Amino acid sequence: MRIKIVNPNTTLTMTSKIGACARAVAGPGTLIEAVSPDMGPASIESHYDEALSVPGLLAEIVKGEQSGFDGYVIACFGDPGLEAAREIARGPVIGIAEAAMHLGSFLGRSFSVVTTLERSAGRTWELAEKYGMARFCKGVHACEIAVLALDTDPDARKVVTETALRAVEIDKSDAVLLGCAGMADLCQEISDKIGVPVIDGVAAATLLVESMLRLGLRKSGRGEFATPIPKVYSGILSAFGG
Amino acid sequence: MRIKIVNPNTTLTMTSKIGACARAVAGPGTLIEAVSPDMGPASIESHYDEALSVPGLLAEIVKGEQSGFDGYVIACFGDPGLEAAREIARGPVIGIAEAAMHLGSFLGRSFSVVTTLERSAGRTWELAEKYGMARFCKGVHACEIAVLALDTDPDARKVVTETALRAVEIDKSDAVLLGCAGMADLCQEISDKIGVPVIDGVAAATLLVESMLRLGLRKSGRGEFATPIPKVYSGILSAFGG
Amino acid sequence: MRIKIVNPNTTLTMTSKIGACARAVAGPGTLIEAVSPDMGPASIESHYDEALSVPGLLAEIVKGEQSGFDGYVIACFGDPGLEAAREIARGPVIGIAEAAMHLGSFLGRSFSVVTTLERSAGRTWELAEKYGMARFCKGVHACEIAVLALDTDPDARKVVTETALRAVEIDKSDAVLLGCAGMADLCQEISDKIGVPVIDGVAAATLLVESMLRLGLRKSGRGEFATPIPKVYSGILSAFGG
Amino acid sequence: MRIKIVNPNTTLTMTSKIGACARAVAGPGTLIEAVSPDMGPASIESHYDEALSVPGLLAEIVKGEQSGFDGYVIACFGDPGLEAAREIARGPVIGIAEAAMHLGSFLGRSFSVVTTLERSAGRTWELAEKYGMARFCKGVHACEIAVLALDTDPDARKVVTETALRAVEIDKSDAVLLGCAGMADLCQEISDKIGVPVIDGVAAATLLVESMLRLGLRKSGRGEFATPIPKVYSGILSAFGG
Amino acid sequence: MRIKIVNPNTTLTMTSKIGACARAVAGPGTLIEAVSPDMGPASIESHYDEALSVPGLLAEIVKGEQSGFDGYVIACFGDPGLEAAREIARGPVIGIAEAAMHLGSFLGRSFSVVTTLERSAGRTWELAEKYGMARFCKGVHACEIAVLALDTDPDARKVVTETALRAVEIDKSDAVLLGCAGMADLCQEISDKIGVPVIDGVAAATLLVESMLRLGLRKSGRGEFATPIPKVYSGILSAFGG
Amino acid sequence: MRIKIVNPNTTLTMTSKIGACARAVAGPGTLIEAVSPDMGPASIESHYDEALSVPGLLAEIVKGEQSGFDGYVIACFGDPGLEAAREIARGPVIGIAEAAMHLGSFLGRSFSVVTTLERSAGRTWELAEKYGMARFCKGVHACEIAVLALDTDPDARKVVTETALRAVEIDKSDAVLLGCAGMADLCQEISDKIGVPVIDGVAAATLLVESMLRLGLRKSGRGEFATPIPKVYSGILSAFGG
Repeated sequence: MRIKIVNPNTTLTMTSKIGACARAVAGPGTLIEAVSPDMGPASIESHYDEALSVPGLLAEIVKGEQSGFDGYVIACFGDPGLEAAREIARGPVIGIAEAAMHLGSFLGRSFSVVTTLERSAGRTWELAEKYGMARFCKGVHACEIAVLALDTDPDARKVVTETALRAVEIDKSDAVLLGCAGMADLCQEISDKIGVPVIDGVAAATLLVESMLRLGLRKSGRGEFATPIPKVYSGILSAFGG
Repeated sequence: MRIKIVNPNTTLTMTSKIGACARAVAGPGTLIEAVSPDMGPASIESHYDEALSVPGLLAEIVKGEQSGFDGYVIACFGDPGLEAAREIARGPVIGIAEAAMHLGSFLGRSFSVVTTLERSAGRTWELAEKYGMARFCKGVHACEIAVLALDTDPDARKVVTETALRAVEIDKSDAVLLGCAGMADLCQEISDKIGVPVIDGVAAATLLVESMLRLGLRKSGRGEFATPIPKVYSGILSAFGG
Repeated sequence: MRIKIVNPNTTLTMTSKIGACARAVAGPGTLIEAVSPDMGPASIESHYDEALSVPGLLAEIVKGEQSGFDGYVIACFGDPGLEAAREIARGPVIGIAEAAMHLGSFLGRSFSVVTTLERSAGRTWELAEKYGMARFCKGVHACEIAVLALDTDPDARKVVTETALRAVEIDKSDAVLLGCAGMADLCQEISDKIGVPVIDGVAAATLLVESMLRLGLRKSGRGEFATPIPKVYSGILSAFGG
Repeated sequence: MRIKIVNPNTTLTMTSKIGACARAVAGPGTLIEAVSPDMGPASIESHYDEALSVPGLLAEIVKGEQSGFDGYVIACFGDPGLEAAREIARGPVIGIAEAAMHLGSFLGRSFSVVTTLERSAGRTWELAEKYGMARFCKGVHACEIAVLALDTDPDARKVVTETALRAVEIDKSDAVLLGCAGMADLCQEISDKIGVPVIDGVAAATLLVESMLRLGLRKSGRGEFATPIPKVYSGILSAFGG
Repeated sequence: MRIKIVNPNTTLTMTSKIGACARAVAGPGTLIEAVSPDMGPASIESHYDEALSVPGLLAEIVKGEQSGFDGYVIACFGDPGLEAAREIARGPVIGIAEAAMHLGSFLGRSFSVVTTLERSAGRTWELAEKYGMARFCKGVHACEIAVLALDTDPDARKVVTETALRAVEIDKSDAVLLGCAGMADLCQEISDKIGVPVIDGVAAATLLVESMLRLGLRKSGRGEFATPIPKVYSGILSAFGG
Repeated sequence: MRIKIVNPNTTLTMTSKIGACARAVAGPGTLIEAVSPDMGPASIESHYDEALSVPGLLAEIVKGEQSGFDGYVIACFGDPGLEAAREIARGPVIGIAEAAMHLGSFLGRSFSVVTTLERSAGRTWELAEKYGMARFCKGVHACEIAVLALDTDPDARKVVTETALRAVEIDKSDAVLLGCAGMADLCQEISDKIGVPVIDGVAAATLLVESMLRLGLRKSGRGEFATPIPKVYSGILSAFGG
């Protein structure tokens, strides 16, 4: 079983950390490959960044299909390009916000999300609504630490932990979701400190893809998520150019 | 990793089938035990049956906790006693409707449910609403085959398959959920015949429990799902009698 | 007209208080009988307690049907076993949360609920959602007084009253619902003190059952709430054993 | 206990029928007075008719307050002027759509509404949404019989009955609501013929007002539904002119 | 292109201000006429006031149709009589709450409403829900300045501005909607002071009506919003009396 | 006033038609420029196509900002890149689905959408939900004509018209929305034939942008839609590269 984790930003230290977190939970027979696209933003902190990350992300899915990967994780909490990826992949594709929210709903009545910047909160709410998870989401709390500063700011761990603790107190929630793939390595530490379960979407999505594969669940070949219709694409790389 | 699958009805042939379906997908290191309670209805086809199945089901969870099980599956599509079970178990508890619906939402925009009797449809809609999955559920279609007749009626496979096919055509849905643990063994066959993915909640829930365990996700010790407060219980077996 | 009020816990002093509150509002020709089941928890403060109260509660409904009761009230704010009770009763069955919430919606744009323990709030929200009343429910406020302490804690009246007052101020709501049958006798006193209407679900449900009976409204004999299908029940008392 | 039923149209034969239906269910000590306003439309079959019925209706509420009525029913299925009436009445005011929908939700999982003209269906859906009852409403089915023709068209009973039967079959619903006060007298007959409970909102609202009064439930004196602020009104009769 | 703005209260200084605000944004070829009805309340601050304003408002629409107006604005933030007005007008009718909320949804993820009195907040929430805009509305904030005091209270501008600023801070919203036609002239000033866009519904509705006209969009002649059926109206002026 | 209409596909004949439809409704002082990006798909018929159209679309917005455009229309019914575009533009950006749905909600209680391919229906429902317009959307009906075939298939007009007619009959809706920018020129013809209003989103969005500009409504400079944070972008053109 081969699962490709696509970190849609181009910061390879983060990709490497993401890969490690996925490997730490993957089953014995599962091969994890974590990659970043060749093109795209160094971090994703706006709708604009997200939009520009998608072509590179999709190119990685196309390459993944060509080299026989079985499933994919999109390792950014905005779940960019999820539906397009589902059209072009034969096997399952899971976003990390999607994974974290769904598993979060199994831990009680509610969860809180700890995100990087306040400006990302709107996207989180939008995804919660789209996945049917808004009823479980009691709050989205920003640390005001930029994505790449998670690794460089010496206070980052402390601030994220404190934000998680405050989130649980304000929201009276049963779990905390880490709202950025760059926080994946903090999961256990924060959980230990705040005494409520903390979910890293990267690990969660990896196991959901594994589960879908083990169950043999693949999209049907027809309808909204069928392979895109081949056509002419100008000035942009497409595997479906006619 | 030890997972206990509780079929909340007392029909052991069905329990045995359910156990086999769980074992077929469980990971190599996972031990599956499938049981029925000592007390309860032979099948669950009403709110009344569901209510009477719960004390026996909860007793099995209590026994499971005593003998060190790590997680639980509730193997009836009404997900009876799910919240009470979560209070008394330390580890994850997943219902098969819950599992099937969540995984179903990863396969496209919508799913249909194939259930046994029309009178069960209301409960399915209620669960879909509760889990946030109503937006994905496009229809609940009854076969009008009683639960225990799934194993004895020679036409059962044919009728369930035809109902699944009709469901997909009417609902234009991307997946079919089997709305009864007694249909677990039909999953692959129906999927092959109708050409869309079919989800058996037993297998799905087993892998979700495994995933939660692999991620170390356990409820927090406080709030709504904390261990029940010990007190006097009259005339009914309770592990929490004070 | 004979109405049976089932207090699903086994604390008879509370049952007696509940009966008195129902009788105080019932019409002249209405006979009220308030009972507790033989088996079940002394108080209901968790999903587990609620689940274990249901078989005893249903047995009381069955006995009620045998002795010709016309309708039933389920006198616990979690409305345990409501749907199962509706299947086995010919006449109306109303839960006290259901009754309080519906009448509460007639008093303005919103209500607040005052509950015993914080851990019960989740169930209240779930019922509000299920009954379509979530849009009216602006808050669920816990007194942190255990159910049975309502009668023994000398500060109970004061704390419940203060919680009701705070609820109205925070939520700017038009009415307060008493979130426990054990508070039934406080209704008038609190309303007088806080100057907004306060609803006791026991009295409210009694009058709703009376109203349904006076209107001759009985469930149809078919569909989801038809009498359960007779079958084998093991190790548990059932009136529908085949 | 004195309850005033306001039929907001000016057709007195209909008012008289409405009064009889209310009296048939009211408790022994309850005095029912059914009136029509002096001004307004002969029947209500549009938003325009509804709007023009409201000043006359409100004038009847004001007169009712002056002569000491305890509560009010608004006997038109569009529930015109309900919120304004609640502002100016000290006691409870219930609309017949409101009453029918709430009681309908106690009879199972769903109800259907049988209305007069197709053009009225939108208003019914709007009220269902507003009252939180949309989740119970499975369909609104028009007879295409004008309001006043209910009493003159020899086929009216037959057509309404057939529409109710078709509604239940299509919607698989557990109850039927009569979507016009002019159908109040058909309630028992249709219920007998179609074998599912049928609710007349006039009778239902009468008993809900009685129940509210018996419970001593009156709006709080503050907030959205407080008495209107006195001011200058030009060219229109107002009891609150400053 | 001729657009009639109906201020449904009878305070002509406010009507005059409203007309000026509409003219300030209308296109070069558009003729704006702002009127008040002959009958109705001096200001609209309750459901009762709103109800009594509607007949006069509708009479102005009827007169407008007779003198060939192309479209209408209802210049009160409760959007009184909107649906009735749509039945009797051939061309578009837009309410100022409707206009402000829809345009507000184009400016980001959320808006706040600044209203006059707290008791009006309920109506604003109801309209937001009805128009599908509740997901964008993060708060309704009262100034506790009466409608007519907006022009006479020397502190009014300051209080409205401060309320708008506080609304944006509390709600973290992307825009502010002025919740009363009497605030129309404050729009630019407040926007400049608080640094977020502020929407005056009068100007917004004027341009939406213009847009509908320019697009040739007129209601269909059938269904819910068709011309009312002619009939007898007693004691009230109606253009549709039979 | 200068408005740029971006057709996010690269088919210039369609762009030209779109420009003509916008110019036909724009005000006298408004300059319309309709463009296609240099890169992207020839038509947009999948999530994949949509994703690949966005970078080119955003580049056009950036160029538009540099050359002083005041506002933008995104002329594809999937509203691709709408939120990213709002981040990078100073003035208003409106999508044609957004525009059509909002104006559609002013014409009655409901609208139907006529789309090209069935596989696009899911995206339409998603947008309706996101904009709060799902309550107005009664159906999405596919013609099964590919986007570019709208101009080449001799039966296209007939099929789109028939689909619109059928949509209105099935859905009993008050308006039809054309679900593809390539249908813009059919608007008047279909409306005339089916007798209900038909909305072309291109024209609608053009007038909404004009209205926003006339009202001086520009996003606030802060929060979710503030200008993206400058950073390194690899292998893809970005105006915000740090």
